[in-house]
Amino acid sequence: MSEKKLRMQLQCPMPKLDFDVITLGHGSGGVLTNKLLDSGVFDLLSNPILNEKHDGAIFKLDGEMAFSTDSFLVSPIFFPGGNIGELAVNGTINDLSMCGALPKYISLSFIIEEGLKMSEFWDILLSIKLACEEAGVQVVTGDTKVVEKGKGDKIFINTSGVGKLHPKAKIGAKNIQEGDSIIVSGNIASHGMAIMSVREGLEFDSEILSDTTNLNHTVSSLLDEFEHKIHLLTDPTRGGVATVLKEIAQNIGLGIEISQNKLPVNSQVAGACELLGLDPLYVANEGLFIAFVDATIEEDFLKKLQKDSNGINAKVIGKVVKDHPNQVVMESAIGGKRVISMLPGEQLPRIC
Amino acid sequence: MSEKKLRMQLQCPMPKLDFDVITLGHGSGGVLTNKLLDSGVFDLLSNPILNEKHDGAIFKLDGEMAFSTDSFLVSPIFFPGGNIGELAVNGTINDLSMCGALPKYISLSFIIEEGLKMSEFWDILLSIKLACEEAGVQVVTGDTKVVEKGKGDKIFINTSGVGKLHPKAKIGAKNIQEGDSIIVSGNIASHGMAIMSVREGLEFDSEILSDTTNLNHTVSSLLDEFEHKIHLLTDPTRGGVATVLKEIAQNIGLGIEISQNKLPVNSQVAGACELLGLDPLYVANEGLFIAFVDATIEEDFLKKLQKDSNGINAKVIGKVVKDHPNQVVMESAIGGKRVISMLPGEQLPRIC
Repeated sequence: MSEKKLRMQLQCPMPKLDFDVITLGHGSGGVLTNKLLDSGVFDLLSNPILNEKHDGAIFKLDGEMAFSTDSFLVSPIFFPGGNIGELAVNGTINDLSMCGALPKYISLSFIIEEGLKMSEFWDILLSIKLACEEAGVQVVTGDTKVVEKGKGDKIFINTSGVGKLHPKAKIGAKNIQEGDSIIVSGNIASHGMAIMSVREGLEFDSEILSDTTNLNHTVSSLLDEFEHKIHLLTDPTRGGVATVLKEIAQNIGLGIEISQNKLPVNSQVAGACELLGLDPLYVANEGLFIAFVDATIEEDFLKKLQKDSNGINAKVIGKVVKDHPNQVVMESAIGGKRVISMLPGEQLPRIC
Repeated sequence: MSEKKLRMQLQCPMPKLDFDVITLGHGSGGVLTNKLLDSGVFDLLSNPILNEKHDGAIFKLDGEMAFSTDSFLVSPIFFPGGNIGELAVNGTINDLSMCGALPKYISLSFIIEEGLKMSEFWDILLSIKLACEEAGVQVVTGDTKVVEKGKGDKIFINTSGVGKLHPKAKIGAKNIQEGDSIIVSGNIASHGMAIMSVREGLEFDSEILSDTTNLNHTVSSLLDEFEHKIHLLTDPTRGGVATVLKEIAQNIGLGIEISQNKLPVNSQVAGACELLGLDPLYVANEGLFIAFVDATIEEDFLKKLQKDSNGINAKVIGKVVKDHPNQVVMESAIGGKRVISMLPGEQLPRIC
C-alpha cells in the first residue's frame, strides 16, 4: 500500500493553488467551491459518470442491488495504517460486501471545518483514489460543505454506495441454523488499538496498524465457491466482535458459543489492550468480517480464506447452538464460561 | 404541512426513555445505540427493507437509475418553514428529480453533537417521516454517529438517494439549444432569507418562510407531458440563481439573457435582501427549480407549471442566445445590462 501511495503522490502532485487552507467560501457553492473542485478533485477522481457534473449520477444497474451509507469522523484523521479517506471508501465497500453485493459506485460527501490544510485534504483525496482503484469502484457523485472553526473537527466524510447482488449470494440472519460454524477472517481489535495507541501516545516495538482494507474481492471469491452455504456475513466495526455476535443471537433466537482460546489477536494488540484495560472483544475492527457458514463447508471455507491476503489469520471461533437462546457464551482461556453482552457504554468514541 | 405535522405529533408521541439528551455512548454501536434506534426510530420509519437491519438495504431497481448525495448542516436547525430533517429529505429528492429520476429509496446518516435534546431529535425524525410520506420515498438504510461537544453543531444529516429515470426524460446540458426558454418555478431567495432573518433577528409583518418542499411529483408530471422537450432541470440552492446560470452558460458555451423585471421575488423577501445588502440572485433556494425548455413548449409548460402548487409563481425569466458565449447578461429593471458572475465569496454560510 505505502509504495503504491508514494507512486500516486509522485504521479498526482497537489495542484498549484492561490490558497493553502480551506475557508468557508469553499463551501459556498460559488466561485471558490468551483475552484476547489475543478483544481484537481474532478481530475483526480475522473470517470465518465462523475464528469457529467449533474445533481446526481446516472447509470444502469439491473437486478437486485444493495445500497448502504456510513459517516466517518475518526480522530485523528491520519492514523497508523491509514487515514479517514480510505477508511470511508473501504467502510462502505465492506458494508455492501457484507450484504453479498459487488460494490460498483460510491458517493462522497465532505463536511470540512474551515482551516483544514489543502495539503491534508489532498492526501486524503489521494487515499480515496487509491482505495477506489484497489476495490474497483468509482466515485460518481459528491458534495462539499464547510463549517466554521469549532463547529466540526477537520473533516467528516460520508460515503454511500450501490452494488449488484452476487448472483449466488443468499445472505441473511434468517438462514443461520443450529450447528453453523462461526469464522472470523483475521486478528481482532487492530483498528481500534491503532487509533487508541496514537491518542494515548503509546509506543511499541513495532507500530500497531489499522486493518482498514476492502473485503469485496475476498467475499466475492468465497461466494463464487460456497454460494448459499454462506449464511451470514457481518463486519464487527464499532462495538467489536462481542456486540455483533450478541445482536445476531438476539436476532435469530438461537445461542452462540465461542472460545477465547481461538480468538486471533496480535500479541502487540493484546498487550496494548491489557495496558489500557480494554477487552479486545469490544474493540472496533475495519477490514475484518465474521462468517456464519454451514458446518459442512467449515474446513474448505477456512482453507480458501487463509490463502487470501485478507484471511491469513482466519479462525473458526465458535458455533451456533440450541442452548441458551439469544445469549452469547464464551469459554474463557482458563476454562470457565461467561455470558457476553453488547458494549455497554462509550468505550472508544470517534473510532471510525 | 403544519396541520399534518401536528397530527403526526399526536399519532407518534416521543417514546418514554431513560435519557433526554444524546450522549457519546449513543454513537458507540453498542447497547445505547441500539436503545436509541429501537426506541422509536426503527418503528417510526418502518418498512420491510429497513426492518431487515442489515449493513445495507437490498432491493430491485431495473433500468437506468440516478444516485445522489448531500450533507446538510443548516444553522439554526429549526427555522421558519421547516427544519434540517425535512430539508435533508427534500434536498436529495430534488437532486434526483433534477436528473429526471423518480426518487424511491433514501439513506439517512446522522452526525450528532453530544447534548442534543432527544425531544429535538424526535421533532426532526417526525419531519423526516412526513417528508418521506409526502414524496413517496422510503428510508431503507442509515447510520448514527455522535461527536463530542464542540466538535459538531447539534446535528448534521447526510441523505443519499436512488431512483429510476423517468422513461421519457432526456435531461442534460448538452441538449440545450439557442432559443431555449428559461423558466423559474417560483419566487426566488425565500430559503436563504428565512434562515438569515432568524440569524439577524429581523422581524416582519409576516414571517419569511423557507420554500423547502419536494419537487418530484411536479417534475414527474411535467416530464409525462413534455418529455425530451425539457432540456435541463436544475435547482438553484447554494449560490442562488446567478451561480447556477453562470455554471450552465460556461458548460454549454452559449450565452444566457435574463430580465431583472421578470424575476419573481416576494416583496417581503426583496425588502429583507435590501435591508441586509444582499442580491436575491445569489441567495439560496430549496424548493425551486429552473427549467431550460424548447421554445415551442414555453407557453404550455408555464401554464401547466402554474397550476401546480409548487409553480404558482413560475415565470419565464430569459432565454439562451448565441451572443456573448459563456456569459450571463441581465437587463436591469431600469434598462441597462450587466454581466452576472458566480457568487464570489461566502455570502451565507451554513444555509443548507
